Amino acid sequence: MLLVHVGDEMQVGFVGFGEVATTISLGLKTNGVDVYTCLSGRSPRTAENAVNSGVKLYSNYKELAENSDILFSSVVPSMAVEVAKMVGDYSKGIFVDINNISPVTVKNALNKIKNGKTVDAAIVGSVVKNGLNVKIIASGPSVDGFLKLNRYGMNISVVGHEIGDASTIKLLRSAYTKGVSALLFESLYHAYKMGIDKEVLNCIAETEGEDFLGSANSRIVSALFHAKRRSEEMEEVVEVLSEHQNPTMAHATSNFFNSISESIEKPVKRPKNYTEVYKILFDE
Amino acid sequence: MLLVHVGDEMQVGFVGFGEVATTISLGLKTNGVDVYTCLSGRSPRTAENAVNSGVKLYSNYKELAENSDILFSSVVPSMAVEVAKMVGDYSKGIFVDINNISPVTVKNALNKIKNGKTVDAAIVGSVVKNGLNVKIIASGPSVDGFLKLNRYGMNISVVGHEIGDASTIKLLRSAYTKGVSALLFESLYHAYKMGIDKEVLNCIAETEGEDFLGSANSRIVSALFHAKRRSEEMEEVVEVLSEHQNPTMAHATSNFFNSISESIEKPVKRPKNYTEVYKILFDE
Repeated sequence: MLLVHVGDEMQVGFVGFGEVATTISLGLKTNGVDVYTCLSGRSPRTAENAVNSGVKLYSNYKELAENSDILFSSVVPSMAVEVAKMVGDYSKGIFVDINNISPVTVKNALNKIKNGKTVDAAIVGSVVKNGLNVKIIASGPSVDGFLKLNRYGMNISVVGHEIGDASTIKLLRSAYTKGVSALLFESLYHAYKMGIDKEVLNCIAETEGEDFLGSANSRIVSALFHAKRRSEEMEEVVEVLSEHQNPTMAHATSNFFNSISESIEKPVKRPKNYTEVYKILFDE
Repeated sequence: MLLVHVGDEMQVGFVGFGEVATTISLGLKTNGVDVYTCLSGRSPRTAENAVNSGVKLYSNYKELAENSDILFSSVVPSMAVEVAKMVGDYSKGIFVDINNISPVTVKNALNKIKNGKTVDAAIVGSVVKNGLNVKIIASGPSVDGFLKLNRYGMNISVVGHEIGDASTIKLLRSAYTKGVSALLFESLYHAYKMGIDKEVLNCIAETEGEDFLGSANSRIVSALFHAKRRSEEMEEVVEVLSEHQNPTMAHATSNFFNSISESIEKPVKRPKNYTEVYKILFDE
């Protein structure tokens, strides 16, 4: 068990201040870490998050990058490379990309960090449910320094030495779980049309464990709600998997979500349960 | 709790005497049921199973069918319709098709039973592991009579009123689990090539429950070992699902297993674990 001594105080910075940054910041602050961000160019929502969290502010990203022992990039996926470029010359500590992006994009982003002190990090599971203790997998040259945050209540595991290992693991997990959602969606729809959907769910739960019934509903609801984004993410998976094989299942999963997203003409409210999903898609 | 009274003795017959019949017979005999079969035209292995189980024998199928309160058809899938035709005119009791066949084939088979006392039954899970207590789902006109076997230690659940309900539920479950195996096989192969396969499994297990790690190995091993049969079974799934949709995921699962079965030039011994599977398929 490592102990935190006086003088060990960490300064942690965040570029971007959405749900992940808010949750981790609040947790770290409670455990005595100084947390900073910068609101220049950020959305009003980001600003509000940061102000409500009570984190300290720098007026520009150069200062934020120069003064952070550990600097998180936690932005929308499309901004990841740009953010790394913006602070790449100034980052003095360890730069941690914790964005939900593909291994290829992680490498592009971390290549911009001049001091080479980088970590590829990925969140596994739900920040909302688990708070500061959410599982984070990490790889890359500066992973040992990043692990120091476990002294302040974080739950980081080293999964490899290369940039790309952590994000590939997350990507493969995501390929698997998205595929499972698609399989379930398709099989259960036939059962729904026959009026035996509950029986099919119970029958699968027989061997798939007790959690299955609870997760089945949310998997199908999310499948509809996030169809477009999932289809795009699965395109990235196809690209990555194609290095070693012709990824039949990942292709199908991408096509599956694409065809759902094309069936919805207008944005939908999050449906309550899977029967509502089937009604929205097929019965109207 | 129902009790068995003197005078309630049941006569149960089996056409076909493989693993399912052997296991159920032994259990039922222990609980006081008279079990019969007929060895005419059966393989030496079937005959040996029946003799070792100590069941009683009729010399022809007409007598077996006339004297059974409940008559199970438990044969190789390709024989299911033929067997039903053979005893269709003589079956006096309830005819239970417990074969692993598609809903379409179940309907074809049970249509041959003249008295109309029929049950569509499907085994969920492993007979080897669970013995007489293995979960059996059942539907059809005579399902109430079939349920009487629960008094003798069986574990039958009614899942619908129509012939085809039980076999459809089993088929949809099977579509789901075979698809899951294919997804896992494909994603984990990429991880294996990168040397991060154990980390990926642990990462998926984080949200998929504790059983995941144990089942992952056997799913991938079975995927290779039974690839050809699975591909054929998935073709039946595609046919069934096509009634209400274009089954993208089932198609892909069928193609996936087909491409594996085509990669294996000669029959293989059951591999020990998933890494051996990947070596057999890709590294030789």
